[in-house]
Amino acid sequence: MRVNGTPYRTVWIERSEMTATVYLIDQNRLPFDFAVVACPGHVATARAIQEMTVRGAPAIGAAAGFALAQAFHEAQATDADPWVSDGATGRRGDGAFHEARDADADPWAFVRAARARIEATRPTARDLFFATERVWAAAEAMSSLAAATRAAFDAAQALASASVAACRAIGEAGEPLIPDRARVLTHCNAGWLACVDYGTATAPLYLAASRGKRLHVWVDETRPRSQGARLTAWELHGEGIPHRIIADNAAASLMSRGEVDLVIVGADRIAANGDVANKIGTLEKALCAREFGIPFYVAAPHSTFDPRVPHGKAIPIEERSPDEVLYQTGPDESGMLRRIRVAAPGSSAFNPAFDVTPAHLITGIITERGVLRRGV
Amino acid sequence: MRVNGTPYRTVWIERSEMTATVYLIDQNRLPFDFAVVACPGHVATARAIQEMTVRGAPAIGAAAGFALAQAFHEAQATDADPWVSDGATGRRGDGAFHEARDADADPWAFVRAARARIEATRPTARDLFFATERVWAAAEAMSSLAAATRAAFDAAQALASASVAACRAIGEAGEPLIPDRARVLTHCNAGWLACVDYGTATAPLYLAASRGKRLHVWVDETRPRSQGARLTAWELHGEGIPHRIIADNAAASLMSRGEVDLVIVGADRIAANGDVANKIGTLEKALCAREFGIPFYVAAPHSTFDPRVPHGKAIPIEERSPDEVLYQTGPDESGMLRRIRVAAPGSSAFNPAFDVTPAHLITGIITERGVLRRGV
Repeated sequence: MRVNGTPYRTVWIERSEMTATVYLIDQNRLPFDFAVVACPGHVATARAIQEMTVRGAPAIGAAAGFALAQAFHEAQATDADPWVSDGATGRRGDGAFHEARDADADPWAFVRAARARIEATRPTARDLFFATERVWAAAEAMSSLAAATRAAFDAAQALASASVAACRAIGEAGEPLIPDRARVLTHCNAGWLACVDYGTATAPLYLAASRGKRLHVWVDETRPRSQGARLTAWELHGEGIPHRIIADNAAASLMSRGEVDLVIVGADRIAANGDVANKIGTLEKALCAREFGIPFYVAAPHSTFDPRVPHGKAIPIEERSPDEVLYQTGPDESGMLRRIRVAAPGSSAFNPAFDVTPAHLITGIITERGVLRRGV
Repeated sequence: MRVNGTPYRTVWIERSEMTATVYLIDQNRLPFDFAVVACPGHVATARAIQEMTVRGAPAIGAAAGFALAQAFHEAQATDADPWVSDGATGRRGDGAFHEARDADADPWAFVRAARARIEATRPTARDLFFATERVWAAAEAMSSLAAATRAAFDAAQALASASVAACRAIGEAGEPLIPDRARVLTHCNAGWLACVDYGTATAPLYLAASRGKRLHVWVDETRPRSQGARLTAWELHGEGIPHRIIADNAAASLMSRGEVDLVIVGADRIAANGDVANKIGTLEKALCAREFGIPFYVAAPHSTFDPRVPHGKAIPIEERSPDEVLYQTGPDESGMLRRIRVAAPGSSAFNPAFDVTPAHLITGIITERGVLRRGV
């Protein structure tokens, strides 16, 4: 999607005979600073994944696939290619590199070590393992290292493209649900910054806007981490879609006054019975929407469904640091980032990361294969 | 209630033959700094009211009554009493003072001007006008200035005491609703900091705790102004009542998991049909409580009922500055207060100050005369 008028993805790879560079929008600096990080080798890309330069399961998966493709490229490099061990990675003395550099060493041992390094960055991210498994399987089947490298790149690129296509298909499925002049409420960031492009909850909005529909989006701030106020608002601003941020407390008030036509949110995990785990606060919005007769949609790719989980109560609730509630970070008037305390000293907080919305509160689940409705 | 183990009220007056000093907890510095402001004359007290050193209708009313009593004291002072024009007020050159100092001038003209000054500080605060009217009426009936001054002090003190007694009575009425080991959710600050003592929504909690009941309070942060995280949490910490702050988004999740036994909130205004206007987000909590079968109580003195308003839809919704959503203020690591942006640059916010909870969602209204229940 667009940033200052220029189209971007969250992660992409550029390759030449000599180089294979992964580019990532630095999400640690958003929304106050827009910057793209160039990772000239798999070590730098792995570090970027670990440091949360990239976030959101599909984007992490794409970055991991690209990183493993980079490792194959590095394994193939037998001459002292300055790009491979570029100073930006700060890893000239890295053991794995020296293994690769040594023409006598086993290049497969090098890529195996690289895969382990990539998989160690975010050990709970399922999309990451799915991506490295796919890229590895494609490469492993080849008879030569050159063919394996080509296959790894093709597989990694196919994974990223599949994510974009899935989000685009979610957009196509959801776009007809959005009337012209719709006032849409969204929670958290299920936008393109969490994917490779388009996003999930935002994809129908972006397609509707691109087709001339006039929209107004109410952006839930989404405390404690404020992904709505920081990321969704930033995305909508880049696309020129009219929107206003609201305190999470204001959603029911707007609904009660007839100011909301529909709600679209994303999902972290969907149980077999259709219960949806998503960012904390989603359940409140669903209850309010039901009270005021407002359609409540969840947008998510099929990979979000987890048939091993029978219902929402079986999903464990992750508790995060109280500091996310007690402190906030942002720029002061001079632009300097400051971390301030926003709660009384001496008090602590309880910070569940997500909640479970029961299936009966959900009007439909917008997937890349169409809209799933209960009992249909 | 207690601060660092010492009992306080939000506002009180100390009087000697020579002096009449109003003391106020400086609420602009809470919760990060606890300080009491001494106002040696009515001009200083009026300025403190205007600068929001004191907040909450009952506390503002008490401060205004005390300020007018101070003015009578000043009018009576015929000698160059150094306390009356104390340097802390910074008002030595003030016209009203010179009028008072001039033994030939009419002391009633002086107190009339003082009353106008006090009433100009917060022209929409009904309790303020109620207080000045009461104090004035008590003084006016007297035949001498000395008697009028005594009557003004007595009336002002009676107003403050009546507020304390009303809050205490709300506590007595609500305390039986709170079982031992109750987990209570509250929203915003309807605590003693908004009153003279005890508070409204908090009074039943303080009484229950003082009688040995074990409580745990879930404190809604209450964005955008965070009165829960800042003021209610600070109050509970002072009283030693176990509590944890939560993001406003977390309430429904806690309720769905059986972690909340009852909800108590305050009220800004109650319509004739029992609809309650209160801090934004109250409606969401009421909807969530109803869904999970949790009692939802409103605590408010009878003065909050406005029989001229037939129902909640007739209450205008005040819209406040978007900056309350877009910026936050608090101390950085060094203790320096900083104002930071917490939302994407380029995006704006919509900031309604309160919402309306329909009467059918409210289990009971706890007043100083008992608990009102629908249809009873």
